Amino acid sequence: MFSTETNLRVRYAETDRMGYVYYGNYASYYEVGRVEALRSLGMSYREMEDSGIMLPVLTYSIKYFKPSFYDDLLTIQTIIPEIPGTRIKFLYKMFNAERVLLNEGETTLVFVNIKTGKPCQAPPEFIDKIKPFFTN
Amino acid sequence: MFSTETNLRVRYAETDRMGYVYYGNYASYYEVGRVEALRSLGMSYREMEDSGIMLPVLTYSIKYFKPSFYDDLLTIQTIIPEIPGTRIKFLYKMFNAERVLLNEGETTLVFVNIKTGKPCQAPPEFIDKIKPFFTN
Amino acid sequence: MFSTETNLRVRYAETDRMGYVYYGNYASYYEVGRVEALRSLGMSYREMEDSGIMLPVLTYSIKYFKPSFYDDLLTIQTIIPEIPGTRIKFLYKMFNAERVLLNEGETTLVFVNIKTGKPCQAPPEFIDKIKPFFTN
Amino acid sequence: MFSTETNLRVRYAETDRMGYVYYGNYASYYEVGRVEALRSLGMSYREMEDSGIMLPVLTYSIKYFKPSFYDDLLTIQTIIPEIPGTRIKFLYKMFNAERVLLNEGETTLVFVNIKTGKPCQAPPEFIDKIKPFFTN
Repeated sequence: MFSTETNLRVRYAETDRMGYVYYGNYASYYEVGRVEALRSLGMSYREMEDSGIMLPVLTYSIKYFKPSFYDDLLTIQTIIPEIPGTRIKFLYKMFNAERVLLNEGETTLVFVNIKTGKPCQAPPEFIDKIKPFFTN
Repeated sequence: MFSTETNLRVRYAETDRMGYVYYGNYASYYEVGRVEALRSLGMSYREMEDSGIMLPVLTYSIKYFKPSFYDDLLTIQTIIPEIPGTRIKFLYKMFNAERVLLNEGETTLVFVNIKTGKPCQAPPEFIDKIKPFFTN
Repeated sequence: MFSTETNLRVRYAETDRMGYVYYGNYASYYEVGRVEALRSLGMSYREMEDSGIMLPVLTYSIKYFKPSFYDDLLTIQTIIPEIPGTRIKFLYKMFNAERVLLNEGETTLVFVNIKTGKPCQAPPEFIDKIKPFFTN
Repeated sequence: MFSTETNLRVRYAETDRMGYVYYGNYASYYEVGRVEALRSLGMSYREMEDSGIMLPVLTYSIKYFKPSFYDDLLTIQTIIPEIPGTRIKFLYKMFNAERVLLNEGETTLVFVNIKTGKPCQAPPEFIDKIKPFFTN
């Protein structure tokens, strides 16, 4: 299992008239979580995409326990629970500054060769970097 | 079961550098679906909120089958599968102009009394309007 | 002068905790206005882009007179005040359902050849379609 | 003159199918700039709003010189050029990691008493904090 944490601050644009972060905005927060998880592994999602592999999302689910509010400093814990194959799963837990669990979610993404449009294996250098976290 | 359809056109702002609608934007498309579903029943979500009842989202899940693209004219089918109690479930199916199924999802929302912050029953006038669709 | 109107309804996602449409969201509303202005001329911005010409924005300004609110049905009046050359100017006026002027703005965009990355003239078929509105 | 800088990283959600940051998203980047400018002065915009004063935007303009791209680390320089009265002006300059100027803009906001809905003077503690930057 690989796990990292990253922080972000809620922007005014992301709130709604209920005063909460709009329920649809957590998808982009989770995206920040997974991109920073890759970066902490020494991988750049941007470079992966520039090298011809993209990662569209296949499934996304989220459970909302508590709202978050304007200017809150949030922590996203991002977990890669298994060594990826053609697909990669990410789990997310989001906390506020008091470490209250606000929501948790899950996404499955697929490695796709941009030229062929077909699913492909995770890049070998990515596997090399993540494998050490799964040995016991 | 209650089911309606509504259309919307993909905006440039909603695409991402993959050329697809960003995966997080379907949440706001589904919101359009459920607001228009309520309107077609003669209910205004805005008036409900102004009258003191809000509907925060508890769970949201989506499966992506095919991407949608800039300027696509999309159809959202929104289904209320059961008579709501303190919670209301919505199912969504999204189609492109060729009636290809692009994604499907589900949300559960809870009726909350804004003053007390506590869950409450669906407003009686809403139940009155939706009940006829569930008698056999 | 060429002028058209198009309508859109404010989505929950577009409001902020002030209860207003977030000030940054009018840019995408104006984009709807100009895309629909082109469509009413028989032009598809999507097809123009697919044919190799894109229209990045050079300048954008807006004056906010009154807020708009959740579920408001807005009207965007979009004006092309001059025959475009390598640049095209759009003016916008946004009204609510009571025809109160809410905001007005202006964008300048430039025709760019996607392959070369250089500015280019407006496509001749576009000029052909818009010219009749400027003869007297 | 008061000036600060803050950084942010471009999210995938904020790009469009041109591969650029969507032109409308800079408004929320600038908002980050001004909120962090206030914070660096020891002011919290959230607390100001909670205390009954809001700051709606009256005018906004931006000139785009160069695009920004996915995952770019941007720097926003935010300037308060004059001591605020009932209105406050912010100037913005955005740079990429190579310190290339990408865009610059300006917003005027008005202090509004939330209860009365009327314009009001900038809070005295804000004036106290900003005044030292304007003495010579």
